[in-house]
Amino acid sequence: MTENATCCIDPPLRELASRVVRDLRRAKLSVVTAESCTGGLVAALLSHGEQASDCLHGGFVAYTKAQKTAALGVDAELLKQYGAVHALIAAQMVAGALERSDATFAVSVTGVLGPDADEDGNPPGLVFVGFCQRGGEAEIIRRTFNGKPPDEVRRAVIVDVLTRLQQKALERV
Amino acid sequence: MTENATCCIDPPLRELASRVVRDLRRAKLSVVTAESCTGGLVAALLSHGEQASDCLHGGFVAYTKAQKTAALGVDAELLKQYGAVHALIAAQMVAGALERSDATFAVSVTGVLGPDADEDGNPPGLVFVGFCQRGGEAEIIRRTFNGKPPDEVRRAVIVDVLTRLQQKALERV
Repeated sequence: MTENATCCIDPPLRELASRVVRDLRRAKLSVVTAESCTGGLVAALLSHGEQASDCLHGGFVAYTKAQKTAALGVDAELLKQYGAVHALIAAQMVAGALERSDATFAVSVTGVLGPDADEDGNPPGLVFVGFCQRGGEAEIIRRTFNGKPPDEVRRAVIVDVLTRLQQKALERV
Repeated sequence: MTENATCCIDPPLRELASRVVRDLRRAKLSVVTAESCTGGLVAALLSHGEQASDCLHGGFVAYTKAQKTAALGVDAELLKQYGAVHALIAAQMVAGALERSDATFAVSVTGVLGPDADEDGNPPGLVFVGFCQRGGEAEIIRRTFNGKPPDEVRRAVIVDVLTRLQQKALERV
């Protein structure tokens, strides 16, 4: 069998994730994810790293609005008012994940992969990424990946999240 | 760019997941996942399907024992007594997921990808998969994927879970 026949995930992404896991372990950062549009792929990629359980506690895949409320305690009124793709939602997602984990650090992703706008009219490529260290303030980043097909948006978002997570780890070594 | 340069996940797995999503939607089954060794990849694969949010509510990635308790309410004493790779844990994982979701159907996966045994001495390739319809009894399946490297175990587990999930959908159409 060729490598591609046995690897579930694209090798370059796995290699990036392995380096992030290495740096998270060095920084003694433990992570919980809260993912919407990436569907669990950030956690899955981190789980491929060597001794991943030293730094990955787990994550939440809150794909629908209802699941964001049921699993992460995101305010249903806020979802109704602002939609799911909003800085306030990304902030509630990291907070909710930290409340439901012993991990020291949370990362959230909520966005629109496309090809169409979401039900609230948010354009394809609009993504909010949240980071929060336990006891700290959430940092929310707004990104737009315009004019790309959904698969390229997904990949760009994942590379962005993993690279920022690695940066957080390197700042703490 | 080639297809492989933009796809995060291996195309044949995506195609299988797309067929599962199609059949889940036809059967009007909605799903929540509770994943340990697969790290969120089952949810991520389902999220690639067309109109995935019709059937995928989301999931829980409970990679560590602590996360199984914090996020899914798995009994910490049970984890201590039996380890994380056990039919009773797979059953508590589907139950915990259904309690924290509006989905009608839950699937859980807990196992050892290897290459080494887990901290409780469970051998590489031992995996428990759980299924539970809301209001029903959990069905737990024990599988062993002996003598394979971790990536092949991961892929075999994912194909097994997706295929069984598709079967559940087809039984309900």
